[in-house]
Amino acid sequence: MSFAADILTLYPEMFPASLGLSIAGRALERGDWSLDTHQIRDFAVDKHRTVDDSPAGGGPGMVLKADVLGAAIDSLSGDDDNRPRLLMSPRGKPLDQAMVREFAAGSGVVIVCGRFEGVDERVIQARGLQEVSVGDYVLSGGEPGAIILLDAVVRLLPGVMGSDLSELDESFENGLLEHPQYTKPRMWEGLEIPPILLSGNHGAVEKWRHEKALEVTKAKRPDLFEKFNN
Amino acid sequence: MSFAADILTLYPEMFPASLGLSIAGRALERGDWSLDTHQIRDFAVDKHRTVDDSPAGGGPGMVLKADVLGAAIDSLSGDDDNRPRLLMSPRGKPLDQAMVREFAAGSGVVIVCGRFEGVDERVIQARGLQEVSVGDYVLSGGEPGAIILLDAVVRLLPGVMGSDLSELDESFENGLLEHPQYTKPRMWEGLEIPPILLSGNHGAVEKWRHEKALEVTKAKRPDLFEKFNN
Repeated sequence: MSFAADILTLYPEMFPASLGLSIAGRALERGDWSLDTHQIRDFAVDKHRTVDDSPAGGGPGMVLKADVLGAAIDSLSGDDDNRPRLLMSPRGKPLDQAMVREFAAGSGVVIVCGRFEGVDERVIQARGLQEVSVGDYVLSGGEPGAIILLDAVVRLLPGVMGSDLSELDESFENGLLEHPQYTKPRMWEGLEIPPILLSGNHGAVEKWRHEKALEVTKAKRPDLFEKFNN
Repeated sequence: MSFAADILTLYPEMFPASLGLSIAGRALERGDWSLDTHQIRDFAVDKHRTVDDSPAGGGPGMVLKADVLGAAIDSLSGDDDNRPRLLMSPRGKPLDQAMVREFAAGSGVVIVCGRFEGVDERVIQARGLQEVSVGDYVLSGGEPGAIILLDAVVRLLPGVMGSDLSELDESFENGLLEHPQYTKPRMWEGLEIPPILLSGNHGAVEKWRHEKALEVTKAKRPDLFEKFNN
């Protein structure tokens, strides 16, 4: 069975976006994965199809209702569904490549995209939603984050990318940022490709790249550099 | 003059996506900001319209050519253009809300979306590209990251969101994750809204929320909690 992604959203029209094109889109066409969107509003129970209400205790914004969202989740993910149920949220665990690999190794994901000021905490608890954040910034809703998460996951699914991929990923997952890259022309605007890269000396190239990766990581991401050295 | 975003990409059809809908889309229609995409391939100089070549020194993947990308950047961002020139890249500075505010306070951004194994380092240096990362994971290209960045920036532009916004943002920018939220019904699946939130005692509600924000941050993001206490 291929990887199945179900998205709960108030904006189904925000999908598939980039997931329908290029690498992810070709994988979708081939059936390497599936993407289904579900309109949360379809699970509203009143005639105005209300999905949100003002926060208990006051304050700005609107909160997604537990009863509506609970029913929406139940409709597509029963007790026998072992896929993780994710809620895109700035309060979530920061997404990293290890989590991406874990999701990619499973049978799929159910993703709830929040909007407004948040989601009623009771539905997060009662339905075991795992909050995931794509970064420390505020988005207008969970949808762009869901696309990011799926983009990262889909490229790791079997058959989606060429054999080159594992090598590339190791270079990221060793905990360092990537060394600088160059390609032809050898000379551009008076700037030369570092001659060592054109030397044909494979060992020297590898050594240079590793040193540059260390340099770049130390300069740009002291946090990663410290982890790497421990 | 409104905020002007120019995107350099091999996949112009990946835009506007969610940026054309909801909050960002309405702001785009009103002219609060503009979005223009530019096909990097249009700046290739050979008859095959080549944009990439194999990495100097060997290795998997393909590298975006300095000459092509340099010409593409020059075509839309001259010396008198004071907008930051961003390159979406996992090697970049991690995007955070402070950077988002800084971009939103400017006149716009030029965003280069990388694909393949990377971008020739010389064009990054020669054109002063500022590398920005949306998170510590690998995406198929820069496009979904560019959408994330613009989504975060556009909601902060003048007139885009209601007056509620400043209050919401402060709650994020004080360095803590948000307290739990609840809304009607009071009782759902045997779970009650915490009675203090329905007490009408504004001071008690604020105190409870602050305590919960501390608790949640300490449990989920010890890194942020530590910063908050320093």
